[in-house]
Amino acid sequence: MKHILDLDDFSIEEVNLIVKTAFEIKKKPEKFSDSMKGKILATIFFEPSTRTQFSFQTAMYKLGGHTIGFSNSLNSSVSKGENFKDTVKVVSSYADILVIRHFLEGSSFAASLFSSCPVFNAGDGAHLHPTQTITDVFTILEKKKELNNLKIGICGDLKFGRAVNSLIKFLIRYEKITFYLISNENFKLSESLKEKILNSGNSFKEASSLEDVIEKLDVLYMTRIQKERFKDKGNVEKDLILLNEKVLKYAKEDLIVLHPLPRTDEISIKVDEDKRAKYFTQALNGVFVRMALILETFKLNNINKKEYFEEKLNLSCHNETCITKYERYLPKLYKKQGENILCGYCDNVIK
Amino acid sequence: MKHILDLDDFSIEEVNLIVKTAFEIKKKPEKFSDSMKGKILATIFFEPSTRTQFSFQTAMYKLGGHTIGFSNSLNSSVSKGENFKDTVKVVSSYADILVIRHFLEGSSFAASLFSSCPVFNAGDGAHLHPTQTITDVFTILEKKKELNNLKIGICGDLKFGRAVNSLIKFLIRYEKITFYLISNENFKLSESLKEKILNSGNSFKEASSLEDVIEKLDVLYMTRIQKERFKDKGNVEKDLILLNEKVLKYAKEDLIVLHPLPRTDEISIKVDEDKRAKYFTQALNGVFVRMALILETFKLNNINKKEYFEEKLNLSCHNETCITKYERYLPKLYKKQGENILCGYCDNVIK
Amino acid sequence: MKHILDLDDFSIEEVNLIVKTAFEIKKKPEKFSDSMKGKILATIFFEPSTRTQFSFQTAMYKLGGHTIGFSNSLNSSVSKGENFKDTVKVVSSYADILVIRHFLEGSSFAASLFSSCPVFNAGDGAHLHPTQTITDVFTILEKKKELNNLKIGICGDLKFGRAVNSLIKFLIRYEKITFYLISNENFKLSESLKEKILNSGNSFKEASSLEDVIEKLDVLYMTRIQKERFKDKGNVEKDLILLNEKVLKYAKEDLIVLHPLPRTDEISIKVDEDKRAKYFTQALNGVFVRMALILETFKLNNINKKEYFEEKLNLSCHNETCITKYERYLPKLYKKQGENILCGYCDNVIK
Repeated sequence: MKHILDLDDFSIEEVNLIVKTAFEIKKKPEKFSDSMKGKILATIFFEPSTRTQFSFQTAMYKLGGHTIGFSNSLNSSVSKGENFKDTVKVVSSYADILVIRHFLEGSSFAASLFSSCPVFNAGDGAHLHPTQTITDVFTILEKKKELNNLKIGICGDLKFGRAVNSLIKFLIRYEKITFYLISNENFKLSESLKEKILNSGNSFKEASSLEDVIEKLDVLYMTRIQKERFKDKGNVEKDLILLNEKVLKYAKEDLIVLHPLPRTDEISIKVDEDKRAKYFTQALNGVFVRMALILETFKLNNINKKEYFEEKLNLSCHNETCITKYERYLPKLYKKQGENILCGYCDNVIK
Repeated sequence: MKHILDLDDFSIEEVNLIVKTAFEIKKKPEKFSDSMKGKILATIFFEPSTRTQFSFQTAMYKLGGHTIGFSNSLNSSVSKGENFKDTVKVVSSYADILVIRHFLEGSSFAASLFSSCPVFNAGDGAHLHPTQTITDVFTILEKKKELNNLKIGICGDLKFGRAVNSLIKFLIRYEKITFYLISNENFKLSESLKEKILNSGNSFKEASSLEDVIEKLDVLYMTRIQKERFKDKGNVEKDLILLNEKVLKYAKEDLIVLHPLPRTDEISIKVDEDKRAKYFTQALNGVFVRMALILETFKLNNINKKEYFEEKLNLSCHNETCITKYERYLPKLYKKQGENILCGYCDNVIK
Repeated sequence: MKHILDLDDFSIEEVNLIVKTAFEIKKKPEKFSDSMKGKILATIFFEPSTRTQFSFQTAMYKLGGHTIGFSNSLNSSVSKGENFKDTVKVVSSYADILVIRHFLEGSSFAASLFSSCPVFNAGDGAHLHPTQTITDVFTILEKKKELNNLKIGICGDLKFGRAVNSLIKFLIRYEKITFYLISNENFKLSESLKEKILNSGNSFKEASSLEDVIEKLDVLYMTRIQKERFKDKGNVEKDLILLNEKVLKYAKEDLIVLHPLPRTDEISIKVDEDKRAKYFTQALNGVFVRMALILETFKLNNINKKEYFEEKLNLSCHNETCITKYERYLPKLYKKQGENILCGYCDNVIK
């Protein structure tokens, strides 16, 4: 069994296996309709989500299994002051797979310390969203056949968007990718991730408008400004970079436009009619990918590629939305990255 | 496949087929216990409902299928500002049937424009509630054998009650029905629906008290004043017309009392013991009718009997609770009715 | 069929049968995986709960059945003013088992008056929680083999905790049990329950600290102070009696520590590592016990051991959180207990 927390824990071979299974399932889903009979998938969602929760539930049902869960922690014992560990201990003892969405970073990793079944990270704050990334990768492969040699535009909120973070971190394992980072000043990709792109041998260009770069792109990954992550919502609207039919005219015929959804205003609705719009296909692909993940998680070995160390370093994570700030009993875990020491939960640089 | 939006889209033969299937199911539900194996029904409810949501879920389970959905849009991506179209596109791609309840009129019809699977209208504002109507019709037929020649009292909120609207619109296809419209001044049936009754060759009488008419009735359809539809709730209580044991004494022995439920205070609880009270049977019948609808929707052809036209009329619907007021990207669609032009979504007269 | 409202309605033989079935299920759950095929369990929860709702759902799924329900009455027709009776009438007509959690005492008993299927009390206010009690009993038996001759510490909120109430009321049917009642002044066990312990031939000792008594105990049952039951939350913290590793040092090697969960701060998290901590096992046992209850409820006879009488006594229950205070149509029912007359719903002494 293997937790699905961070794609860094997966070899390219493992991801290929999952994607291959997902293609098989998409071709003939009925073939798998009894694979999870009698099994239970729990979705514990501390943040709302239509798509991710429904796609996991749908995936489990199409495999013949059942689901339990909540979509709002106010309806659960969390509202009586139960700590996260106890919720995880108990629900994981009832279930065969535990899917977690949480507003705090590192929460799924924390859950994996206590869970008696595989944990799937379905989004932890602004940190990671690995099942979305495999869905994105699956959709790119379905339309473009390979990941190397692509010109990939990523537009919108590159700073807080967890889908973006996860996707870039995964794609830099491939070769000759040029990332076009299209965002406003307030939503630029972090310096550390830019550095990682360069260290991987791939490259990036920055832009502040779609018009400037769209003609070059093979893939355009649009994202929403996640208003719910800011206190000051005043100026978000003016940072919007809009994809509409007018801009799309300059794009290649075989561009594919993706979006992790939900969208708000960053893609005009008329674009939906354009054959290059693939975001609804991508949403449906999420079901096939999650079916594959459910099937494969029990077959993979949980060789954790990160090197954690636990020590009396007496260092705390400074990230105000790290799970360690709220659940004080969590063991102190760190990772090394070059000279730096990172929080073992949220990957924030501590020192 | 056929959407279930408005019974006007159904021929009498089609409704008869559905009712016949429902009777078969009620007799022997086990016979159908694997009919929907591997299939998924989604219930997306933007307004709360015990009965309708549970009856659809129960119906799907009794057919061997699964369900996904939400009962409160605050727990879904709608709370992140997702538009209705995207919710419909994605959820319908996961599901085999999409059941929608919404506080805005015309929402189910709007959904049918984008859905990749059959849409069931489970109540759209004060507009329509067709699966309730077939349940009502089924229950009347179960007890009275036919729909022609009945004296049917309809009491309570005839102005905003969608169950009432749907039921009357359907029943006027039959013959020699006398409607007794029993309501207070503020809750009278719309002039346009009264006109339709007369045009159909059936007749109606108006009354403001049950005592005046109950002795004549074969069927008494009670309804709740839907307080949630008013801003000014001050005077609702005084408009209550109460059915209690005292009033019921004047009624025929074979009267049947129906109510779409939930009731509030319009039927006294002691009436429940009377053998003429059939509203709990009616609620249970809702499961069998919905099982039949789920089974038959895939077999029927979606010949839309309304004649829509899309035109640059530059006319907007004036109805403040029409879906077109909120989802601005919806195509402008109209219907003709005699001299009038109606909104294609909520049937409001525009011109 | 038999309602599960109050273990007083069950003979020791019946409880033994349920526990025996639960042991069989725990050994080989697959054996029962189709027992409830096509059946529906409804969970209507007017108070939030992770564990109880999930354990019932999991139990039903492991038996091959389905579930419907709500975890928050705001999402249901209750928010439109529907009375409790109608909710019960309708939902029980859809389901094969009705599980109710409610903040008002006597609510499950009230439901049993109207339900067309077995009702399970999953907690009614501060009154009873019988399925928790059978889970507790199962776990004690699993570890201690018998219930007679034990020294059982019960710590925390002995006044309002329904799990405690239910457990003590059940255990006093056995012999030579010494209860160590460990609580602060504000949370002491009721005089009437102390009297019952003595009348049963068992005994109790009171203490205000764990250190004083822990060395004597075979079982330690910890509970949470249920803050949600008080208006004045000011001083709850100072009443906390804490179990930590230091205190646990004085305990026997074969002590078992139980807790109905959720815990808040009364057990320090480090205690989880101690092999005597059995509360997570207990939570999982809840699934096997509920599977057994679901299976056996249809086989048992509903011989109600309480002697109800309905009379024109013109007495009302004084308990402000009794269901009869809110649902005024309920028949007036009383029980006799010695000289006293009790409310037939919440067991409060009326006279």
